[in-house]
Amino acid sequence: MSFQIPRGTQDILPEQAAKWQYIERIARELCRRYNYQEIRTPIFEHTELFLRGVGDTTDIVQKEMYTFEDRGGRSLTLRPEGTAAVVRSFVENKMYGYPNQPVKLYYMGPMFRYERPQAGRFRQFVQFGVEALGSNDPAIDAEVIALAMDIYRSLGLKKLKLVINSLGDVESRKAHRQALIDHFQPRIHEFCDDCQARLHKNPMRILDCKKDRDHELMRTAPSILDYLNEQSRTYFEKVQMYLQKLGIAFEVDPRLVRGLDYYNHTAFEIMSEAEGFGAITTLCGGGRYNGLVQEIGGPETPGIGFALSIERLLAALEAEGISLPISEGIDCYVVALGEQAKEEAVALVAALRQEGIAAEKDYQDRKVKAQLKAADRLHAAYVAILGEDELQKGVINVKHMATGEQQEVSLDIFVSHMKNVLQ
Amino acid sequence: MSFQIPRGTQDILPEQAAKWQYIERIARELCRRYNYQEIRTPIFEHTELFLRGVGDTTDIVQKEMYTFEDRGGRSLTLRPEGTAAVVRSFVENKMYGYPNQPVKLYYMGPMFRYERPQAGRFRQFVQFGVEALGSNDPAIDAEVIALAMDIYRSLGLKKLKLVINSLGDVESRKAHRQALIDHFQPRIHEFCDDCQARLHKNPMRILDCKKDRDHELMRTAPSILDYLNEQSRTYFEKVQMYLQKLGIAFEVDPRLVRGLDYYNHTAFEIMSEAEGFGAITTLCGGGRYNGLVQEIGGPETPGIGFALSIERLLAALEAEGISLPISEGIDCYVVALGEQAKEEAVALVAALRQEGIAAEKDYQDRKVKAQLKAADRLHAAYVAILGEDELQKGVINVKHMATGEQQEVSLDIFVSHMKNVLQ
Repeated sequence: MSFQIPRGTQDILPEQAAKWQYIERIARELCRRYNYQEIRTPIFEHTELFLRGVGDTTDIVQKEMYTFEDRGGRSLTLRPEGTAAVVRSFVENKMYGYPNQPVKLYYMGPMFRYERPQAGRFRQFVQFGVEALGSNDPAIDAEVIALAMDIYRSLGLKKLKLVINSLGDVESRKAHRQALIDHFQPRIHEFCDDCQARLHKNPMRILDCKKDRDHELMRTAPSILDYLNEQSRTYFEKVQMYLQKLGIAFEVDPRLVRGLDYYNHTAFEIMSEAEGFGAITTLCGGGRYNGLVQEIGGPETPGIGFALSIERLLAALEAEGISLPISEGIDCYVVALGEQAKEEAVALVAALRQEGIAAEKDYQDRKVKAQLKAADRLHAAYVAILGEDELQKGVINVKHMATGEQQEVSLDIFVSHMKNVLQ
Repeated sequence: MSFQIPRGTQDILPEQAAKWQYIERIARELCRRYNYQEIRTPIFEHTELFLRGVGDTTDIVQKEMYTFEDRGGRSLTLRPEGTAAVVRSFVENKMYGYPNQPVKLYYMGPMFRYERPQAGRFRQFVQFGVEALGSNDPAIDAEVIALAMDIYRSLGLKKLKLVINSLGDVESRKAHRQALIDHFQPRIHEFCDDCQARLHKNPMRILDCKKDRDHELMRTAPSILDYLNEQSRTYFEKVQMYLQKLGIAFEVDPRLVRGLDYYNHTAFEIMSEAEGFGAITTLCGGGRYNGLVQEIGGPETPGIGFALSIERLLAALEAEGISLPISEGIDCYVVALGEQAKEEAVALVAALRQEGIAAEKDYQDRKVKAQLKAADRLHAAYVAILGEDELQKGVINVKHMATGEQQEVSLDIFVSHMKNVLQ
């Protein structure tokens, strides 16, 4: 009998895991600099949270959720995205009352969507995201965008495109919504079933439709930018002014929309422009959601955030031919000959490790030659050979693999010697 | 409408998350020294894997799994523990063919068991664990135990008890099994239903029963140690010899058992002896499982590992009154007065962050006094004040909060000045 990994999921094996760790370290370090702190919410939530927080007209909720009942009959869902749960926690833990406002949070972890698996798309994927809750300052919109760009750039990505848009405030969206209905209504029968259903529920999402993207009414559809009221226009201008101040290049694309009512003002996406990156070029999406906290049962609170997929980030790195500076190799491999030396080697390796040295030995009862090969495969910087002769003389033979230099070292000072040469 | 976190799960809020990060860093650093590499497997697996790999007579499988069907009708289960999936990945990725043997892996992540929530017990909890696959050397048993102890000790825990036992090889277990049946059979009707069911399926698990622990037959039950054959005894002695060589104190407890057939030889647990730690004192459990890889469809491969819960580790730290050395506080808070200074502050904060400095500013349109308070709450090491006067003079006022020392610095060199003073 053999067992396989579930379809659409992947094992991250050691070599790959080192890349993940590197990316996570960079993301955490940038969050430290930007003063965002980590929050960890559960892998599953009550299903209602996503119906409300993601929106029950979205594809995610309608087709892609892993929903199940627990043994107590409660409907739970594996989280398909991160924002709803962070906002749930914000409300449940009354973070709107924290003296430090805005509350700046980040999260990192697996999300789950039952989609058709394809290149770069998994049913379990990892998102890193941030949420800044409690501020209505356009400077925080710019900060959130800058943080996302900084993560990509710190990893060496260059072929990036930042696209921004404004969805305006409630009043502006309402005006635009009516204009969209008026625009599409006369010929809505030429559109797909989904779009027909969207016309009155959520006409903005028609602009996002992949099936009808080439319909002529799409090109001529009213632009949200023409419906922004004074306040919304000023807000958007300030966001752009800050981005310029931060030296971040961007394009304004009025077709960049978000379907849900509580999204407003700033929306943005970061795309990879690397050649051969594939059809799905979006690496990161974010925006302002001033209505969401209230939707989840909290007081009126502005919010903005983004989420990015680590899998796509890795794909973008590959497309740009970037290899991350991951240190391979252990510091010291202790080769032992003979029963007594073998036992002694256990203690030596342990003593090295106590001093912060990455050390290894043989556990396969291998001959010296095979042990040396193993040391080589582990890219050991040093190999220390302990034979029976050495053991009797109280010494060990230390070889620097890069230079071939060899040195006999007293066992008493072996660990401190290794500490010195490795510094 | 308000939304709550699912029962038995918890949000890890920023202050707590910093502790988790610290523990994870320590665990990763020790894995680096011990040459264990990370593997990440999915959150869910095909249910059959756990039926086989955890054992369909266990409480976990019978009562505690989160099992559900996906939209394709496959039975999936949120992983209740880590070993089965790591072994599944080992087999599926043919790691038994890797030139470096043993394959030394670690994992860290959420596990799920539907249990009655109680103090220190969650339905979603995080395990850190290691598996060393491919070696039958007692030295690797000692290494695995040493690594677990090292994690606890590196975090400052002192009140620990290490208990070890041997379950012997297949032959030894078989002899012991028969002795147990002979011992309990005559009075098995005095035991609980579970134990009666265990008598022929898995008599060793009777020794583990919490309900019948005080029955007199428990005290007089045959000890596995009396049934170890020559080879098993030698193996166990060597493990003990290595532990002594490593200076690791331990007790041998023949009642420490594992129910499943493919567990053999070394079994161990690490307990907290801190006062007031509560009823569940086990922090970490591990052992050898030479039959498991074959059970999951791979070639005969020895293996040993352990798993520890981060939640219990945190509880043990608290019980011993240990506070982790977590650095709080940002490096620099930029206070701005006036519209122009406010805009300039956005660029200054960004420039500081580019140089690795944790910097923050106000996003709430607060007055100077409130901004200073915010800086204080964020434990800023330095506060830099930019008013309209300063802006015109091209300077900024930098205050070291610990000493109260103040200095006017040219805006041109502000970032490099901050880099210097923060070093």
